[in-house]
Amino acid sequence: MKGRILVRLPNANIIDVTHDVSVYWPAEAGFWLKRAYHYFPAGTLHLAIVDPGVGTSRGIVAVKVPGHTFLAPDNGLLAPIVASQPAAVIHRVEIDAVIQKFGLSHPSATFHGRDIFAPLGAEIASGRATLADLGPQVRDIVPSPVADPVESGGHVTGVIIAIDHFGNLISNIDERLIRSLSNPVVQIGEHRLRLRRTYGDAAVGELLALVNSFGVVEIAQTQGSAAAALRMSRGQSIRVSQS
Amino acid sequence: MKGRILVRLPNANIIDVTHDVSVYWPAEAGFWLKRAYHYFPAGTLHLAIVDPGVGTSRGIVAVKVPGHTFLAPDNGLLAPIVASQPAAVIHRVEIDAVIQKFGLSHPSATFHGRDIFAPLGAEIASGRATLADLGPQVRDIVPSPVADPVESGGHVTGVIIAIDHFGNLISNIDERLIRSLSNPVVQIGEHRLRLRRTYGDAAVGELLALVNSFGVVEIAQTQGSAAAALRMSRGQSIRVSQS
Amino acid sequence: MKGRILVRLPNANIIDVTHDVSVYWPAEAGFWLKRAYHYFPAGTLHLAIVDPGVGTSRGIVAVKVPGHTFLAPDNGLLAPIVASQPAAVIHRVEIDAVIQKFGLSHPSATFHGRDIFAPLGAEIASGRATLADLGPQVRDIVPSPVADPVESGGHVTGVIIAIDHFGNLISNIDERLIRSLSNPVVQIGEHRLRLRRTYGDAAVGELLALVNSFGVVEIAQTQGSAAAALRMSRGQSIRVSQS
Repeated sequence: MKGRILVRLPNANIIDVTHDVSVYWPAEAGFWLKRAYHYFPAGTLHLAIVDPGVGTSRGIVAVKVPGHTFLAPDNGLLAPIVASQPAAVIHRVEIDAVIQKFGLSHPSATFHGRDIFAPLGAEIASGRATLADLGPQVRDIVPSPVADPVESGGHVTGVIIAIDHFGNLISNIDERLIRSLSNPVVQIGEHRLRLRRTYGDAAVGELLALVNSFGVVEIAQTQGSAAAALRMSRGQSIRVSQS
Repeated sequence: MKGRILVRLPNANIIDVTHDVSVYWPAEAGFWLKRAYHYFPAGTLHLAIVDPGVGTSRGIVAVKVPGHTFLAPDNGLLAPIVASQPAAVIHRVEIDAVIQKFGLSHPSATFHGRDIFAPLGAEIASGRATLADLGPQVRDIVPSPVADPVESGGHVTGVIIAIDHFGNLISNIDERLIRSLSNPVVQIGEHRLRLRRTYGDAAVGELLALVNSFGVVEIAQTQGSAAAALRMSRGQSIRVSQS
Repeated sequence: MKGRILVRLPNANIIDVTHDVSVYWPAEAGFWLKRAYHYFPAGTLHLAIVDPGVGTSRGIVAVKVPGHTFLAPDNGLLAPIVASQPAAVIHRVEIDAVIQKFGLSHPSATFHGRDIFAPLGAEIASGRATLADLGPQVRDIVPSPVADPVESGGHVTGVIIAIDHFGNLISNIDERLIRSLSNPVVQIGEHRLRLRRTYGDAAVGELLALVNSFGVVEIAQTQGSAAAALRMSRGQSIRVSQS
């Protein structure tokens, strides 16, 4: 992918945000992208490719929000960004047309990242192509494979949507959703945890919950891996309630 | 390595192609390099270092094909590129001489990547050195540690030469070798698999075979890891025959 | 982190030295940094963040040695560099003041790498800030969590401080400490190993000891992983003595 980007945009500054995401479940990549993109400079083009449907009839979408442009399979990956940005403009990529228009000769059926996303990204990042050149504006994209958290009866229920390098279990429950709880308790499996401020506020080896640096509820183990300690993975249910 | 490159070539654009290859078997690195190098811009210098013989009497070779230059241990890593490019020019690096000529003071016996390959690569990429400055042109390099696929009696037999991030088992059988088979069947271990076009053409969890985006026969598991499912690794035999 | 660096320093050349270090034990990161920094160009700003105390009262320090500047949590990570460089100048970062001065609005309690280190690093690397702008010069930093090797009765005793991509067990025993031994033998667990020059000097699968390319005693297994073969990890004791 990087070679094909550099061929079309020799001075591209290419940053790998992460390769350590679930490879067949676009929800985790979508989470990180939505929570991280705004730290990048205005004008950044973000390629986000978790693509189990590559080569099938799944679509490709381009999304523009102020300062940032995104290109991804239309499989729910970009849904969190669109949902959070009323100004988001969505274009459906006309794949056969762009293959012709931009000379993407003979794309493979199994690696559109290299054969379609990379060269299209270079065309957009270089300013040679606009989203209108890729295809028509549309109103909807495929929704996220993960439902938004549910608020009911004083509880907020969500799921673990990401696991980081440290084994922290990261949920999709935004701190805004629990702000009304004066004394929140986080329940995951058999564990009930009070919110702390940072990892060092618990003893080494202790489980804790906190609102993390991406603004969502997280389960951690001080100087350890919560994912390993709890043997839990992505999709695990998590609930926050008044104690 | 990157530090030493930047010291000699401050504006180097350094791309990591992969670190996820077999570390003592140059065949996998050679496979990826041969199948990926041509996606990079003309003028690229490729360093490829899988080097179990570092510090012994093994040699170093530089290879030039139109648009691309390669520097690697002479252990078979570059053999696939040389075999596929009639125009390839090979130079044997005179190690003691280049240490003097390019000021590579006191190279270690265990990390030539940093102490020899990186600075030499910077000298070549900068245009300050040509292959002739490294050593004499030669006709042969050490052959690949993996034999080419064998065609016999309507079968083509090869080996798994690479495993990717998804656990796909990638063979050295190029699609050209099976083009004459009207109805090819791939056999690996006890499994006999028909060729599909892409991963999504099989059910989730199903094993499949396909010609992948690098033009070779691959065994995959839809939304899973074929390497884990089959407990197979590099070197495993694979055969394609008429069904 | 890279996004926040690029926002303040768009032409930053960002190199990842490693992410494969112990995440809660600053000693390994400190080892690699001290043994690698001098390979980078003069003027490099090194960010080194292994930070189990993030968000607690732990401090942040900036260190300047000729040609290189370092920014890290004050948890012993930079102690090896300071100990090895008599010319090292240390500044204690006044965290609340720099948050104001450099507009680091609302840093999180759990990811100072992104919220404090990255933007401060960009300010220093750009030349807009000097260490004096971060806080007062001080004389001491927190010492390393690992004691220096001990020389006693003809023995030198140290610990395994790093494990590399190959599974090599890398000690903190510098070759200077064993130079007086005419016939050194390395003892780790039940194993007694003579020093070799390089990996290929032992048979495939054999354990060996050598002085590695970073100038310290290392235990390796030829074409294998010493860490896996010996089931040993960081902190393991190792001793070198006259045979």
